[in-house]
Amino acid sequence: MTTPLIDATDLAAALDRFAEERDWAQFHSPKNLAMALAGETGELVEIFQWMTEAESHEAGRDPRTARAVRDEMADVLCYLVRLADRLGVDLDAAVRDKLAANALKYPVELARGSNRKYDEL
Amino acid sequence: MTTPLIDATDLAAALDRFAEERDWAQFHSPKNLAMALAGETGELVEIFQWMTEAESHEAGRDPRTARAVRDEMADVLCYLVRLADRLGVDLDAAVRDKLAANALKYPVELARGSNRKYDEL
Amino acid sequence: MTTPLIDATDLAAALDRFAEERDWAQFHSPKNLAMALAGETGELVEIFQWMTEAESHEAGRDPRTARAVRDEMADVLCYLVRLADRLGVDLDAAVRDKLAANALKYPVELARGSNRKYDEL
Amino acid sequence: MTTPLIDATDLAAALDRFAEERDWAQFHSPKNLAMALAGETGELVEIFQWMTEAESHEAGRDPRTARAVRDEMADVLCYLVRLADRLGVDLDAAVRDKLAANALKYPVELARGSNRKYDEL
Repeated sequence: MTTPLIDATDLAAALDRFAEERDWAQFHSPKNLAMALAGETGELVEIFQWMTEAESHEAGRDPRTARAVRDEMADVLCYLVRLADRLGVDLDAAVRDKLAANALKYPVELARGSNRKYDEL
Repeated sequence: MTTPLIDATDLAAALDRFAEERDWAQFHSPKNLAMALAGETGELVEIFQWMTEAESHEAGRDPRTARAVRDEMADVLCYLVRLADRLGVDLDAAVRDKLAANALKYPVELARGSNRKYDEL
Repeated sequence: MTTPLIDATDLAAALDRFAEERDWAQFHSPKNLAMALAGETGELVEIFQWMTEAESHEAGRDPRTARAVRDEMADVLCYLVRLADRLGVDLDAAVRDKLAANALKYPVELARGSNRKYDEL
Repeated sequence: MTTPLIDATDLAAALDRFAEERDWAQFHSPKNLAMALAGETGELVEIFQWMTEAESHEAGRDPRTARAVRDEMADVLCYLVRLADRLGVDLDAAVRDKLAANALKYPVELARGSNRKYDEL
């Protein structure tokens, strides 16, 4: 048996409890959760939009920015885990398959130091 | 000591190894990773855009759609975990704080059955 | 000579003047403008995320929601026109080509009443 | 009477005709159109995600990239204009109000050369 790369079981359960207590499951269709995920991702992107790449590496230094980044990342993660739970997607298996597929699409010798897509390598 | 709600340590390490082998760390500024996250979220949203909410609950039944959803969710998760790793964000602590904050913003009695934002409850 | 489907010349000029007066051209790389566009789109999506489709048709009735939608759409449009201006993209020609291409991809007889992608028709 | 900053009347009419011919109005709820807009914006962001800002200024030089950018921008614009049409939003009035509001939020003397938000100026 392999150890998981990611284990979100307890977070999924906590989010389900949170929604159940508030009778929110009715709003949590996969369609709506995907939208909520997009909304939070938009807020995360906004934090970085006028920074240079170099500045973005230092985003953790300013407490206000660091807190905003952390908050938005938590929102993105919660909606992603909730969506997976509602659709019965096993996130650990999904990322394992993705990593295996990417290893084939981006062989080390071809991909080294390149920012090209696999079909342009 | 509390058990984590989410543990992405091994995934973060696997992603770092993957990037190191390909000399990709140079492209993985927080700014760029936030963009990549937005791109993958956009692809996830596209899958659901013309579905009704009811249809979105059944998205797992069609194998082609189920596979697309799973793939895009894996991409979103990988970029999120990679971004957290690069910025030194503790995702487990971040979601714990977020859940505690949301419990205060959305008290059960006020929020039950409502899709309003906390400032309109 | 054809009349344009869309004419954004004066808006592009107004946005350029606005940026020049504030010495903001330095921040307006296509990369940054694309991020800003994604951020504003995220805010627009958030407005609709918990609405049913039927409710979204009535979004203009509540003054607060109507104003939020209008504001976010203006932001999206401004960043899009600014991005086109910076990259020298002729938006009118681009949408003409797109409409012509879509007419071929979605022939009336095949596409009528269907929400499928062209490669699944 | 003022001349419009942007005139999308004919594009809105062309998009409406395109949808009517295919009986697609049933899918074009504001909620769905906002999702479609987010999906296309995600595709646009993807084009720039691994570019430096300097490289993004030259995105028009490579024909394949230039074409992809132009295509995605056309998609974003079409969904935005379609959404405005379905909700009865006057895009020209919306951007005029936005420009006036931004002129107040970002006075030239305070905003010059700064990438800060108005509440941090």
